[in-house]
Amino acid sequence: MTRDSLEEDLEPPPGTTPAVILVEPQLAENIGMTARAMANFGLSELRLVNPKNGWPKKGVREAASGATHVLDRATVYPTVEAALADLTFVLATTARERGQMKRVFSPEDGMAALAGQPGRRAGVMFGRERVGLSNDEVSLADAIITFPVSPDFPSLNLAQAVLLVGYEWRRASGRASLPFTGEMLSPPATRGALVALFGTLEAVLDGAGFYPPEKRGGMVRNMRDMLHRMAMTEQDVRTFQGALRAVTRAMKPPKTDGE
Amino acid sequence: MTRDSLEEDLEPPPGTTPAVILVEPQLAENIGMTARAMANFGLSELRLVNPKNGWPKKGVREAASGATHVLDRATVYPTVEAALADLTFVLATTARERGQMKRVFSPEDGMAALAGQPGRRAGVMFGRERVGLSNDEVSLADAIITFPVSPDFPSLNLAQAVLLVGYEWRRASGRASLPFTGEMLSPPATRGALVALFGTLEAVLDGAGFYPPEKRGGMVRNMRDMLHRMAMTEQDVRTFQGALRAVTRAMKPPKTDGE
Repeated sequence: MTRDSLEEDLEPPPGTTPAVILVEPQLAENIGMTARAMANFGLSELRLVNPKNGWPKKGVREAASGATHVLDRATVYPTVEAALADLTFVLATTARERGQMKRVFSPEDGMAALAGQPGRRAGVMFGRERVGLSNDEVSLADAIITFPVSPDFPSLNLAQAVLLVGYEWRRASGRASLPFTGEMLSPPATRGALVALFGTLEAVLDGAGFYPPEKRGGMVRNMRDMLHRMAMTEQDVRTFQGALRAVTRAMKPPKTDGE
Repeated sequence: MTRDSLEEDLEPPPGTTPAVILVEPQLAENIGMTARAMANFGLSELRLVNPKNGWPKKGVREAASGATHVLDRATVYPTVEAALADLTFVLATTARERGQMKRVFSPEDGMAALAGQPGRRAGVMFGRERVGLSNDEVSLADAIITFPVSPDFPSLNLAQAVLLVGYEWRRASGRASLPFTGEMLSPPATRGALVALFGTLEAVLDGAGFYPPEKRGGMVRNMRDMLHRMAMTEQDVRTFQGALRAVTRAMKPPKTDGE
């Protein structure tokens, strides 16, 4: 889609959406893909705690695939505590049990809990690519989010985890409208229009000698059922009628006794 | 987690889960990340239509990060029609309106539609990285899936789109249990245990001269409210009582008139 000003339309502003906190992320590609995933679902506040090998990283903008507004605004912190200092509700993502007496949410329920407290400055923490968050880091959070992954292959990529949180945030905050819908461009066909179509079709097939006379009744009913399952619109019926008219014109004239 | 045999536990078998069909994918990294995303949510049947620059691709196994069982089983087709030939229910993912009179599903509703027809061999088509599916390819599908992305940044990465479909498939098919839950390891504290704790705490604070006598009643009630909000377990109360005992022992003996 084309917008006059991308900057103007960025929705919603930072400070009203959860911050995404990446703790010691290593790969430029994951940070870039995180920015892209955030932008996909309207998140814009990225916080990086002590990124491995410094910041900015080479290749991160390419991986963000245009979500550079998220990268440009990203803030870097020396410690997790500093990155969380101004937040009032913090969720930690983790793939494994920590033996901590915290609520454990699915992404859906975690984002619902967060969306249910609109006055709070919230953030979601994501750990290092290989080893996740430490127990002490998890201990800084109000609650945990974990993902409903297959036990056979539970290892989610960092940006994929961010994507699921962003997706569920968008849904929980009531912004998950689809870019387009399947609304029919034409209203449903009336029963009268359908019955007229049945008549045209059956006349064509009669003219073509399709129905064995003794089976005609059942075959007609079966074919009407097929047509009902199409749930045709007015336009569909007009198109179908037009096709049948063309076929009728192209058919040889029916044999009569006179020939 | 450790499993004796990964192969044995792969769940569920191909033929019972939707196939993921990538049409002319270009980047090894996207195909590898797609395999990983599929494995994360228990999908295993990957079909590749005419991958750009051939197959197998260099770097694809690294990007799959261990989901090589999906790559090893991937099948390559020369055309979309061939890749769909044995399927009986096909969904096409697309980011934009096509003017086709098809149902348009969110990922959640699309996967619910698919899970509601367990006898059908289903597949979900994903288009090229840059240009998606052609109108003729979309036209081969029963219905469309589109994603509830931000209108400001709608461009989803290919593997990210696959991830969302896999995630919603797992939820729709009733397999989305979390790897662990937040069940408390200790039962909730009884009211009796709590009231005893209040008594201990208030005695310690009385001993420390914390409460101005004229405000004691209100301050005690406020602090009891704070403690109620903790929703303590039996173990929490024992820990707290132990901490208060330690503090009591460390406190100077209360001044008496005799001193």
